[in-house]
Amino acid sequence: MKKILVLGAGLSASSLIRYLLQNADKEDWHIVVVDQNIELIKSKIGDNNRAEAKIFNALDSDVRKKEMTDINLVISMLPAKYHVEVAKDCIALKKDLITPSYVSSEMEALHSEAENAGVLIMNEIGVDPGIDHMSAMKVLDKINGLGGKMHIFESFTGGLVAPESDDNPWNYKFTWNPRNVVLAGQGGAAQFIQEGKYKYIPYTKLFRRTEIIDIEGYGAFEGYANRNSLSYRKTYGLEDIPTIYRGTLRRKGFSRAWDVFVQLGATDDSYIMEGSEEMTYRDFINSFLPYNENDSVELKLRHYLKIDLDDNLWDKLVWLGIFDAKKKVGLKNATPAQILQKILEEKWSLSPNDKDMIVMYHKFVYQKDGEFHELVSQMVNIGENQTYTSMSNTVGIPVGICAKLILQNKVSLKGVHVPIKKEVYTPILEELEQHDIVFKEKEIHPPRLYNEEATWR
Amino acid sequence: MKKILVLGAGLSASSLIRYLLQNADKEDWHIVVVDQNIELIKSKIGDNNRAEAKIFNALDSDVRKKEMTDINLVISMLPAKYHVEVAKDCIALKKDLITPSYVSSEMEALHSEAENAGVLIMNEIGVDPGIDHMSAMKVLDKINGLGGKMHIFESFTGGLVAPESDDNPWNYKFTWNPRNVVLAGQGGAAQFIQEGKYKYIPYTKLFRRTEIIDIEGYGAFEGYANRNSLSYRKTYGLEDIPTIYRGTLRRKGFSRAWDVFVQLGATDDSYIMEGSEEMTYRDFINSFLPYNENDSVELKLRHYLKIDLDDNLWDKLVWLGIFDAKKKVGLKNATPAQILQKILEEKWSLSPNDKDMIVMYHKFVYQKDGEFHELVSQMVNIGENQTYTSMSNTVGIPVGICAKLILQNKVSLKGVHVPIKKEVYTPILEELEQHDIVFKEKEIHPPRLYNEEATWR
Repeated sequence: MKKILVLGAGLSASSLIRYLLQNADKEDWHIVVVDQNIELIKSKIGDNNRAEAKIFNALDSDVRKKEMTDINLVISMLPAKYHVEVAKDCIALKKDLITPSYVSSEMEALHSEAENAGVLIMNEIGVDPGIDHMSAMKVLDKINGLGGKMHIFESFTGGLVAPESDDNPWNYKFTWNPRNVVLAGQGGAAQFIQEGKYKYIPYTKLFRRTEIIDIEGYGAFEGYANRNSLSYRKTYGLEDIPTIYRGTLRRKGFSRAWDVFVQLGATDDSYIMEGSEEMTYRDFINSFLPYNENDSVELKLRHYLKIDLDDNLWDKLVWLGIFDAKKKVGLKNATPAQILQKILEEKWSLSPNDKDMIVMYHKFVYQKDGEFHELVSQMVNIGENQTYTSMSNTVGIPVGICAKLILQNKVSLKGVHVPIKKEVYTPILEELEQHDIVFKEKEIHPPRLYNEEATWR
Repeated sequence: MKKILVLGAGLSASSLIRYLLQNADKEDWHIVVVDQNIELIKSKIGDNNRAEAKIFNALDSDVRKKEMTDINLVISMLPAKYHVEVAKDCIALKKDLITPSYVSSEMEALHSEAENAGVLIMNEIGVDPGIDHMSAMKVLDKINGLGGKMHIFESFTGGLVAPESDDNPWNYKFTWNPRNVVLAGQGGAAQFIQEGKYKYIPYTKLFRRTEIIDIEGYGAFEGYANRNSLSYRKTYGLEDIPTIYRGTLRRKGFSRAWDVFVQLGATDDSYIMEGSEEMTYRDFINSFLPYNENDSVELKLRHYLKIDLDDNLWDKLVWLGIFDAKKKVGLKNATPAQILQKILEEKWSLSPNDKDMIVMYHKFVYQKDGEFHELVSQMVNIGENQTYTSMSNTVGIPVGICAKLILQNKVSLKGVHVPIKKEVYTPILEELEQHDIVFKEKEIHPPRLYNEEATWR
């Protein structure tokens, strides 16, 4: 029997724990789930005799290490900042570790130490990061195998509301951390390269430089640039590619309307607004507008941001209730971003029967024998309910499959890794298809190039 | 004989040292000037037998304290971050101290300690901060004396090029730290209050929400909001004022053109641009524009920022040489802000015979006996040359006069202060007039109110 230690039983661990329990008999696993909240663990493991709840502070290294001695594999579903501490324990005790989070520089620094200890620390194996790496590398390795040379790589992911639950003019609801959505794009320019030219988009233009993307069967989306696309050249072995661009998907029309809040300064999280508790929603918007004794907040906003009378982004703003002169913010010492989040949460929260959706889209243009070719790969996954959401499934199931591969000794890697190797992504992508996480690949004729002359180079 | 210790002999100390030497015989002063650069000191004190050069590291507390034992007054012209250390020594040795810089929270925390030691630490006694406080408080105390109640206080200061040296389409040259000009307004929303409404302007709108100000005899200027106007309510004893606004002056038309760089993201100092050394000025601008194989950088920029063909801000951009396809940036690992600064320095630097100018403008609207009244107070000072600039004079001379008042025992204050008390500002403002730093006050009829209905309240 093999023992798996799962640290953290929060929202993102639901689908992982279910997957582990479903495979526990066949694989002869014993699963130890750790959290400080017993109710939370119980709700996920039920009375399954393959699972065991342990209540201790997973952030306490002394306790944690004691509990790790007879474990075969550790899975950390803790907040990302704690992974490095867990990884150090794993190296000391020679236990393999899986985390769904980005490899921090501190984690990367553990590579040689982990390798020397014969320990695998697999990261970025959920959704963005995770499934995006695997599905992209599958096509990139295929193109490489054909002798093709990559010219354009674009990759977009979005966490959205499912079409059957999409009933508001923004075509958007919060399906994950609302704070991250409000702050998205802040903290530095978006950086990418396009036809060999480095490009930088500041926050103030980010939501106005979107790209329209059609997802077969699902209609039009738009993508805005992620902060750093350039580092993925190294991750994906595309050092010389002329165009690489990674972005976030929203439904078409979202970004233009969202930009109203960006331009107002309503997404700013750096200062506290005077009298935020007693402020009405209307006061909140008015505080970003020039003073004028005669004009309404509505007129001042239209004039300030040049919003035409017949522009349908106006309907989105009105629907949010931002002009309400009675409703009070009710948050003490709040930043603009915190107030905006509160206003949005009243409107963008999922109803009990709503489902979420993860959409992923890759575009590959490559050159072979003097000709350009284009492939696209798309994946759309709809959540089951509000426990087994698409976000939870697309994070938890690949983590679970990876756990199985490691315990079956099918992964030969040691050190700190992300899932870009064939031995990892092939079995995971194959099994994901059984869970309705399926990438459809398609050739596009003629290939869509940014620079037509590139055809003749 | 009284001994004055001047720490630092840099650009901003020129006028101060000249003032001290001019008064040294009459006041029986001995002036010790400390710097690490002997040439710099010699260039300022010449062979005046009232002055003495000392070469030591003024940042080394042990050395500094030894040199302070027989001193009557310390003046710190060091970079602002060192003032607190100097202040601690002054308290320990019971020496009064003057600095022209803003009171940091660390400095403020020394108030009781200084007071108990019977030491005066006078700060913010140059120009913005300094002369602005004094000239504003003079009028505010007068209005208070008349029984008036303040309704609007606006205050603007600008460091600009003098009209006789103003020969470029921006009507602007660097007269002080260029880096601060490039980064101006970043790091948080501008905050103020207008007719009782709190207002917040994000960086992306800061240069589009200017106020036009006519300075008698000098034409039209414009002011953009400083970061924090609200804290001045406490400084000036205006806790309940409905409108308080502090800003920075530029010549009319500057801000609209500057906003092009803000919108592009060219003032960003948070990331390094790839290949900055070999990049041309044209490449620099192009890196912020959407890729398009057919359009020129000029057309892309016009289209992106909606700049009409006949808009004269275009002339400003062309004049800067930003479209030059041959000139290289030549800076390794540079941020956008560093590159922009370099481009601007080639065009906005003062020529050897150019003069600078400090402009200050206060607007006061107050209520008395049910009527509104308006006063404005303006000051324009032109530099003598590139050593005794207006910036140097307006910083150094008030510091020098304050030194004289302290050594004549005419200031009774103890503790950490800024010059808002009559006993300080009255003699300083009076003597400043002999140095051509003169405030002209004027009544305005009818008073200019933001809200006409306020007249009937």
